[in-house]
Amino acid sequence: MSPARRLQGVKSSPVRDLLALTQRPEVISFAGGLPAPELFDVDGWRDAFAKAGDDRRNLQYATTEGNPVLRGAIAARLTARGLPTTEDDLLVTTGSQQALTLVTTALVEPGDVVAVEEPTYLAALQCFQLAGARIVPVASDEHGMVPEALAEVLERDKPVLVYVVATFANPSGRTLPAARRQQIAALAEKHDVWVAEDDPYGELRYRGERVPALATYGDKVLYLGSLSKIGAPGLRLGWLRAPRSLMPAAVIAKQAADLHTSTIDQAAAAVYLSNADMDTHVAGLCAAYRERRDTMIAALPDTVPAGAEWTDPDGGMFVWVRLPGEVDTADLLRVALAHNVAFVPGAPFFATNPDHATLRLSFTTNPPEEIVEGMRRLAAAFTSPSDGGGR
Amino acid sequence: MSPARRLQGVKSSPVRDLLALTQRPEVISFAGGLPAPELFDVDGWRDAFAKAGDDRRNLQYATTEGNPVLRGAIAARLTARGLPTTEDDLLVTTGSQQALTLVTTALVEPGDVVAVEEPTYLAALQCFQLAGARIVPVASDEHGMVPEALAEVLERDKPVLVYVVATFANPSGRTLPAARRQQIAALAEKHDVWVAEDDPYGELRYRGERVPALATYGDKVLYLGSLSKIGAPGLRLGWLRAPRSLMPAAVIAKQAADLHTSTIDQAAAAVYLSNADMDTHVAGLCAAYRERRDTMIAALPDTVPAGAEWTDPDGGMFVWVRLPGEVDTADLLRVALAHNVAFVPGAPFFATNPDHATLRLSFTTNPPEEIVEGMRRLAAAFTSPSDGGGR
Repeated sequence: MSPARRLQGVKSSPVRDLLALTQRPEVISFAGGLPAPELFDVDGWRDAFAKAGDDRRNLQYATTEGNPVLRGAIAARLTARGLPTTEDDLLVTTGSQQALTLVTTALVEPGDVVAVEEPTYLAALQCFQLAGARIVPVASDEHGMVPEALAEVLERDKPVLVYVVATFANPSGRTLPAARRQQIAALAEKHDVWVAEDDPYGELRYRGERVPALATYGDKVLYLGSLSKIGAPGLRLGWLRAPRSLMPAAVIAKQAADLHTSTIDQAAAAVYLSNADMDTHVAGLCAAYRERRDTMIAALPDTVPAGAEWTDPDGGMFVWVRLPGEVDTADLLRVALAHNVAFVPGAPFFATNPDHATLRLSFTTNPPEEIVEGMRRLAAAFTSPSDGGGR
Repeated sequence: MSPARRLQGVKSSPVRDLLALTQRPEVISFAGGLPAPELFDVDGWRDAFAKAGDDRRNLQYATTEGNPVLRGAIAARLTARGLPTTEDDLLVTTGSQQALTLVTTALVEPGDVVAVEEPTYLAALQCFQLAGARIVPVASDEHGMVPEALAEVLERDKPVLVYVVATFANPSGRTLPAARRQQIAALAEKHDVWVAEDDPYGELRYRGERVPALATYGDKVLYLGSLSKIGAPGLRLGWLRAPRSLMPAAVIAKQAADLHTSTIDQAAAAVYLSNADMDTHVAGLCAAYRERRDTMIAALPDTVPAGAEWTDPDGGMFVWVRLPGEVDTADLLRVALAHNVAFVPGAPFFATNPDHATLRLSFTTNPPEEIVEGMRRLAAAFTSPSDGGGR
């Protein structure tokens, strides 16, 4: 079925329904990938908007490529983190979700193959499905995508795009080691295929040493970044870092998509990045999120049934759990909601052959005491009599 | 050629290049469709952002459908203007350009036919071309799209979508009379085809009586609106008003596009619409723009060669000019730029068989004295020796 016809048949989506769930105030939600709102720098952003709002040019139309001062600030931050970048390498996007859609529009035809790690970000799967792509999963282990498996897929399925969340992956929390990044970038060069490295979480490291971005290893790697996790997601500010060869196509796709990203939000972000001590702010986020991750990991043995397995991520937002036996976590979610706690069932994160015994827990949204209470509720849900679920 | 491949071949676009032109400070530009920046309510928007910025929830992710308070305010405004609308009929979009892209994603497959008035909004043409549509122009006269011609196209070409800027069209400035609206809505029902009514300019009326929206005449009409021309375009706030049958598809396309529109911009607009006296503000815009239109129309006989024709619009932003003889206004633009004045050549507004002797002038961006000076420069350009252009 073709994209528009398929779209008209769609009635709902997992992310939408889950965002709705998180709004019931009595629910402790580990479902959405939401930053902790109490850690937003409300004063800093209000000051930035006040300054941006003084200039009437920030209420006017603007160029598609984005605010040059903001692009300069992002380029400087990427360069400082080991990914040499200039303003001209960057296109400001309405969140990194838009960057993903633009890359898809520019590269993927109906029927083309997109290769993904498994499991992977469900909104990326949705984006590729909308474009009419055939999605081929690449075998992945506890260190992420397996380069040998990618080599086979490249030979056999001839994808036009490889999508990977290399650092603190959504939903698995896994990080691709430097050696594998090098191998994957080399495979992309050899097969002349684009890799989209989606990196919304990279700055949120709680343990271990930074791994260089996949994009540092080769010119076939597009890099998608975001202020959503280190600044504020409500501004919808992301970016695409792409070679000059691809930029004109991305800019025209962006122009058709929304002409340009909010002028005032971009201007406020440019002010914010010049005023704020981002390194200190991010260090504060990491300290808080580290404690939350540790709290969740410490509670897991008393929460899940014996035989369950989970990841213990070095950073990011997510713990990925596999329950023992033949369970369907979609059924368990209904039980959990009756106990006023929520998670995301794992199946929608698989392109093919979903593992229904998996689930994703986000540890960033709630403070430690809420995590403890939520995990207590989850334990009660996991041990309560089934409501007739199971497969 | 398929959309992504075609996109990779694209090197530039008229709108982009023209937006770049308008940034040279010595140029008086009649090119961009920009509202007058000195008429922005800078104080009102700054206050609205200050209030929105006090609530940290406005920095967080939000639902795809959009801020309920904002949707309620837009629904009330549409209802008051004769188009009965509830909050649930509306999806907030990142400008009405995004609404157009979402409608296209939801309805148009590669190879499908889209029918358009001629000439029409060039970024709409670009959007349909990106989707791989075959674009069929419908004969249009001084009152816009001719219903009898549409009936023929519906029979012969079986479009899936009809696109029309019914009120103060871009680029022609024409307004479709009520009787034609009724006929077109009836044709859409009869042939079970969607009509997209793009209405960014409808509130900017300087003469005559309001004509009811095309969407008031039938359920097959999607209505695309925007705060860009009556509020501020920099916030990128628009909306799609669609029947419940199409809304789920539009929402999922929006989720893939950018998850949701800026939370803080939506919240600020909700505050602004509740605080501001919009009717008074719009009346002020209309008074200023009426004078600018009159200034431009009065200058035209002394600006263009004898035998030229132009529209005298009842509202909106644009005057559409046809020069006599075999001229190409793309060549004239180069001469005009040498005289530090700019317009948009008409050819890109045609889906097929462009009329190269046409051009679009925007009268809203510049105050009357600048319009007088710009028209003086344009007259000089039109009478200066050609630089070898012509066809």
